[in-house]
Amino acid sequence: MNDRFKIGEIVGMQWFLYKCHWEATDSLHSLTDWSFPLTEEFIDSLIGGWTESSLLYSRMAEHPLWEQIGRSFVHHYYQQFDLDRNQLGTLYSDTSCLTWEGQPFQGKAAIMEKIASLPFQKIQHSITAEDHQPAPDTCVLSMVVGQLKVDDDPVMGFHQLFLLKNDNDKWICTNDMFRLALHNFC
Amino acid sequence: MNDRFKIGEIVGMQWFLYKCHWEATDSLHSLTDWSFPLTEEFIDSLIGGWTESSLLYSRMAEHPLWEQIGRSFVHHYYQQFDLDRNQLGTLYSDTSCLTWEGQPFQGKAAIMEKIASLPFQKIQHSITAEDHQPAPDTCVLSMVVGQLKVDDDPVMGFHQLFLLKNDNDKWICTNDMFRLALHNFC
Repeated sequence: MNDRFKIGEIVGMQWFLYKCHWEATDSLHSLTDWSFPLTEEFIDSLIGGWTESSLLYSRMAEHPLWEQIGRSFVHHYYQQFDLDRNQLGTLYSDTSCLTWEGQPFQGKAAIMEKIASLPFQKIQHSITAEDHQPAPDTCVLSMVVGQLKVDDDPVMGFHQLFLLKNDNDKWICTNDMFRLALHNFC
Repeated sequence: MNDRFKIGEIVGMQWFLYKCHWEATDSLHSLTDWSFPLTEEFIDSLIGGWTESSLLYSRMAEHPLWEQIGRSFVHHYYQQFDLDRNQLGTLYSDTSCLTWEGQPFQGKAAIMEKIASLPFQKIQHSITAEDHQPAPDTCVLSMVVGQLKVDDDPVMGFHQLFLLKNDNDKWICTNDMFRLALHNFC
C-alpha cells in the first residue's frame, strides 16, 4: 500500500467521521449512526504512535483521528444531555461504569436511572477545555473541563472523563466520572 | 476452590497491597517495589463486575482492590511529586502519554523533561476528591480533584486523571492528563 492510497483512505475515513459527527449532532434520530468502523488504519492511528500519527494527520486535518473521535463524542454527549438526557443510554453498555460525585453505578440501566433522577429540569453545559489521548486496548480517553448552568442556579464548574471503546462498529463509553469543581475549593 | 479459601487469598492479597502501599509511601527507595502480581483473582476483581466485587470486598476491607491500587498510586504520585518530581520516571513507560495543560508529550523521557522543566521550586499537592474504576484491558482509571500550592503563589485548584496498566508485575501510568481548575472559570 503506497502512501497516497493510505492517505486517501484516511481522508475518506475523516470525511466519514465528520459526516457521522454532523448527523449525530444534527438529529436525535441519528444517535445510533454515531459509529465508526474499527479498520486496520484506524487501529494504527490509535496504537501506532502519538507523535507520528499527530504529524501525519496534522497534514490531513486539524486533529488526529482519536482526537476527532473524542471531540465528536463529548460534544455529542453534552448536546444530547442538554436536549434530552433520557436518550443517552445508547452511549453506554451493560458493563459501563459511572461515578457521579463519588457514587458508583454500573450498567446502562443503573446509569440512566441516575442521570434521569438528577433534580433539575433544564441544564446547559459549556466546554472550556478538552483533552484526548489514545489509550490501551484501542480506546480513546477524554477529559473535559467546563461550566454548567442548572435551572436558575448560578453557573458551576465541572470536570468529567470518558473512556471510549469500539464495540461492534459503535463507540461505547465504558467509563464515565463526573465531579463538580466545588471540590477544588473544599 | 471454596469461598473461604478464595476470601483468604483476597485477604492475603490486600495485606500485600497495603504493605506495598506502606513501603511505597514510606520510603523513596521502595519505588520499584510498588508492584502487584497480576493473578487470576486480581483480574477477576477488575473485570468480574463492579457491584459484585464492591460487595464482596467491602466485607473484607473498606475498598475494592482496583480502588486500593488507584488510591495507592495517586497518593504515591503526589508525595513523590512534592518530594522530588525527577524520580517520577519509573511510573511511566516509553509509550505513556501526558497532556499537560493541553500540551501533548509521549514517552518517559519527554514526560520527565516536561515535569522537570516546570517553573517552580516547591510544590505541595492536596487531594480533595478521588474516584477510581476498573477499566478495559485490566486497567485502573483514576480521577483526582485537588489543590496545589507552588512556591509563594496562591493556592490553585487542579484535576488530573491516570490510566494504570499492569506491565510485568509493575503498575505503569499509560495515560496522564492534567489541567488547572482555572479553566472552569474562563
